[in-house]
Amino acid sequence: MTTECLYEGKAKRIYTTGEEGIYRVAYKDDATAFNGEKMEVLEGKGRLNNEISSLIFTMLHENQVDNHFVKRLSETEQLVKEVSIIPIEVVVRNIAAGSLVKRYGIERGRTMNPPVVEWYFKDDALGDPLMNEDHIRIMNLAEREELNAIKVQALRINELLVPFFKEAKVDLVDFKLEFGRTKDGGIILADEISPDTCRLWDEETGESLDKDLFRFNQGDLQTGYEQILQRLGGSKS
Amino acid sequence: MTTECLYEGKAKRIYTTGEEGIYRVAYKDDATAFNGEKMEVLEGKGRLNNEISSLIFTMLHENQVDNHFVKRLSETEQLVKEVSIIPIEVVVRNIAAGSLVKRYGIERGRTMNPPVVEWYFKDDALGDPLMNEDHIRIMNLAEREELNAIKVQALRINELLVPFFKEAKVDLVDFKLEFGRTKDGGIILADEISPDTCRLWDEETGESLDKDLFRFNQGDLQTGYEQILQRLGGSKS
Repeated sequence: MTTECLYEGKAKRIYTTGEEGIYRVAYKDDATAFNGEKMEVLEGKGRLNNEISSLIFTMLHENQVDNHFVKRLSETEQLVKEVSIIPIEVVVRNIAAGSLVKRYGIERGRTMNPPVVEWYFKDDALGDPLMNEDHIRIMNLAEREELNAIKVQALRINELLVPFFKEAKVDLVDFKLEFGRTKDGGIILADEISPDTCRLWDEETGESLDKDLFRFNQGDLQTGYEQILQRLGGSKS
Repeated sequence: MTTECLYEGKAKRIYTTGEEGIYRVAYKDDATAFNGEKMEVLEGKGRLNNEISSLIFTMLHENQVDNHFVKRLSETEQLVKEVSIIPIEVVVRNIAAGSLVKRYGIERGRTMNPPVVEWYFKDDALGDPLMNEDHIRIMNLAEREELNAIKVQALRINELLVPFFKEAKVDLVDFKLEFGRTKDGGIILADEISPDTCRLWDEETGESLDKDLFRFNQGDLQTGYEQILQRLGGSKS
C-alpha cells in the first residue's frame, strides 16, 4: 500500500492511508516561530506534541466535542478524519499575553472573562493577519452561520480545557484552533492542541511551559513540554 | 476672551470658545502619512479640508445624520459641538484598496457590497491597530450597544456619501469616521470627512483625488482636493 504526503506544514506532515477518509499525521521535530524566521530541530518535540494533542483530543471526544482525532498510531503519528481545513485560525484568550499586549498595550497577565476570541487569516505569506467577520465574508472563507458555530465550539473547548489544565496546575493563557469541513458538511475541530498552539503558564511560578520557551529563548522547550505531558497524565519518554 | 488649545492633532487644533459646549476647530496645512513618518506643510490643505468637511457635515445634517458640526467660521476654521471622542476609528470600505489589499491580498478595485466595516484603536503610538469587538470590550472603549449604534450610523453615512460623491463623478472607495459622546449621553459623528480621511477615485480615470496623492507622491495634493471641493459645489480659492 502506498501512501502520499498531501501536505507538509511547519510542524506536521499529512499522509493518505489505505482507508478512505482517514489521514495519517506525522509530527515533526521542527520548531519555528515568528512566521518561520526562527527555526530549529528539537528532538522529541514531535513525540511530545503527538502525545499531548492525542490526550487532549481524546478528552474532548469524551466530552462530546467532535474532532478529527481517530487514534494515536505511534510515538509521533496519529490517525485523523479527512477534513478540508478552513483557512481561519481561531484564537481564544483568557489572560493577556503575546500580540494582545504588543498590539493594544493591554497589561500582560490580565484575566479576561468572557475570553477574547479572534480570527486570523491562515496565510504564512501574509503573516497570518488578524481579521474580522466582514473580511471573512468578502474573502468567502466561511459563512456567517459557520463562524457562529465555530465560535460556540471554540468557547466550549475553552470551558473544557481551562479546568483540564488547572488540574495539572497550569493556567491556559490562550490557544489557537483550526476547524475543518467534513465530507458530510459538518465542521469539526482539527489540527492540534499542544504547547505549540497554546500558551501555558505554571500556576505557581508563572513560568512558560509552551512554545514561548523557544520563541524567547526562555529555557529548554522539551523540558517544558515534557512537564505538560506528565502533568496531564501522559506516559514518560 | 481667552481661548485655550485643548488638543493638537496631526491635521487640526481644537480650541475652547467663550460659549459653553462649543469648540473651535482650526485646520492645519500639515500633511502626514504612515503614522507621521512622512510629513510636509502643504499650503491650502487646511482651507480645502475645512471647506469640504463643512459641505459634507451640512449635507449629513440635512439628511438627519446628527453630527458635531455647527458652522464654518472662516476659511480654515469651524465651530463644533463639544464631544468626548471615542478612541475608535471606524473605517467603511466600498472598494478594496490600501491596507485591505496589503493585509489580505484582496484585489485592488474589487467592489464589496455590503461594505466592509472595521474598527481601529485610535492610538498613534501603537500605529492605530485593527481590533475586534472583544478587544473593544476588554479595553472598555465602548459598550456593545454603542458599537451597534455607531455601525448603523456609519452605514447610513456611507449610503448618503456614495451618491453624493457619485454625482461629482467620484467613487467613494473607503473612509474613516470618528464618533464622540455628547454631554447628554448621545453618540454623534465628529472629527472630519475630507480627502484626508476618504479614498476618492475619479470615476472615469480611477485617479486618486485624496491623501494617496501625498502618501505615494502621485501628484499635487492641493489640485486633487480642489477638484473635490469644486465638484461638490464648493467655492473656488
